[in-house]
Amino acid sequence: MITTKSIAKIKKLVGESRKNGKTVGFVPTMGALHKGHLSLIDKAKKESDYLVVSIFINPLQFGPSEDFKKYPRNIKKDKQLLKKHEVNLLFYPQADKIYTPDFSTFVQEKKISKKLCGKSRPGHFQGVTTIVTKLFNIVQPDLSYFGQKDYQQALIIKKIAKDLNFATKIKIAPTIREKDKLALSSRNAYLSRKERKESRAIYRALTQAKKMIKGKEKNPKIIIKEMKKIITKEPAAKIDYIEIRNAKNLEKIKTIEGKTFIGAAVYFGKTRLIDNIIVSKN
Amino acid sequence: MITTKSIAKIKKLVGESRKNGKTVGFVPTMGALHKGHLSLIDKAKKESDYLVVSIFINPLQFGPSEDFKKYPRNIKKDKQLLKKHEVNLLFYPQADKIYTPDFSTFVQEKKISKKLCGKSRPGHFQGVTTIVTKLFNIVQPDLSYFGQKDYQQALIIKKIAKDLNFATKIKIAPTIREKDKLALSSRNAYLSRKERKESRAIYRALTQAKKMIKGKEKNPKIIIKEMKKIITKEPAAKIDYIEIRNAKNLEKIKTIEGKTFIGAAVYFGKTRLIDNIIVSKN
Repeated sequence: MITTKSIAKIKKLVGESRKNGKTVGFVPTMGALHKGHLSLIDKAKKESDYLVVSIFINPLQFGPSEDFKKYPRNIKKDKQLLKKHEVNLLFYPQADKIYTPDFSTFVQEKKISKKLCGKSRPGHFQGVTTIVTKLFNIVQPDLSYFGQKDYQQALIIKKIAKDLNFATKIKIAPTIREKDKLALSSRNAYLSRKERKESRAIYRALTQAKKMIKGKEKNPKIIIKEMKKIITKEPAAKIDYIEIRNAKNLEKIKTIEGKTFIGAAVYFGKTRLIDNIIVSKN
Repeated sequence: MITTKSIAKIKKLVGESRKNGKTVGFVPTMGALHKGHLSLIDKAKKESDYLVVSIFINPLQFGPSEDFKKYPRNIKKDKQLLKKHEVNLLFYPQADKIYTPDFSTFVQEKKISKKLCGKSRPGHFQGVTTIVTKLFNIVQPDLSYFGQKDYQQALIIKKIAKDLNFATKIKIAPTIREKDKLALSSRNAYLSRKERKESRAIYRALTQAKKMIKGKEKNPKIIIKEMKKIITKEPAAKIDYIEIRNAKNLEKIKTIEGKTFIGAAVYFGKTRLIDNIIVSKN
């Protein structure tokens, strides 16, 4: 595995691979790699000839009161994992090379990004779409991989790729879960023992919703009420949102039909966790 | 010359040229081609192996009360000119393929684009930077050409190319002028005979400013006052702005030094004309 901080070197190495007819896969990450990332990486490795992973904790996607400073960093362990999973090229840039002092250009998706997490975290998705645009232009991948755990993010990235005519295909890979079904996230490391135990309630609520939909329930309000009941039983839980939406565009629905997004964002103590499942109802 | 409306075909044809080691040049236009465009095209032809020109009147960069509908269109003559100037590929897309009904992604430069024409035409530069991003992603040129007549636009495009890591180099080519020194613009066609005659005052004001700077004058205010005098003598003229700025970032200056932008936007009747010169003062 080649590791570089240099944008010029990434462009050169990927350019050479492309000239040699290789399909370039790309997995952008913020490091602190867990099995969720690794499953993306393994999928990308299978589907491409030359695999690029980036590690960059993007300051632009954190709000002023969010966890940029304490976000977990473990580059040594990350590198070992990436080598083991046969990544070809690690892009590990410096923040001041990504955002020069006079930086002033932003990419903004203005529909999907206004909803759900976009409401709770103003500016977050603009930060995501701006860095992803930059990374797409630097790496110029054929295939790019995002996790379903951040479903709204993945949908927005699909949207900007379509709207701005990026050459890369966007692939969304399934959420990886702990044994007790908590969705893997670098932020799980923040949870106290008690919070960690209580956090299982999110998946319990999601599966309860799925069960109700697979049964006869078509009214999102009734299901959401049930989900809230499950989560509010946990003393450390504070609901940010629980939503049932059209899975294509995250728009509100009155009746459940077709591909449906069931999502939740819940604080356990100071840690905000998100999770979702997609249910098809015909 | 191959002409196509198809985004997929452009990507395919340019991709093949690139694989054959050819340098791809690109001149985006809104059609109604004049000698200004043709000088850009000739320069691009010299410097690249495969030359792509686009003609697309971009609705996104026109304000609701602006001239989108009456903007001059003459595709037949444009095609003849492009053939004559040995363009390889003409991209002439349909608006509904460029902006699908659910289009929701925008590229915004937030510093330079707030000034001068950005103040007079809110949303204009966001329209420009969004379409240019799309065209860069579709064509993936090595070299892209813009005219100095739209100096602020060229500067903003340089900025987004740097900030978002586009692979293309941005080249700015000199303003081409009529015999009486009016800067060539597709919008000159709107001018009545009387307005056309009066419009010469813009260049007279610019050269007066240059003369004063090449002399001893270092105070922008004194020079701008003189320029305004020249232009307001013309009965049809209504000044939008006259500005002397730092040519690198268009920021305000109190004393003239280094590369300096002298620019004007003036209405003659309903037609808004812009022009500028860059002066170096050491």
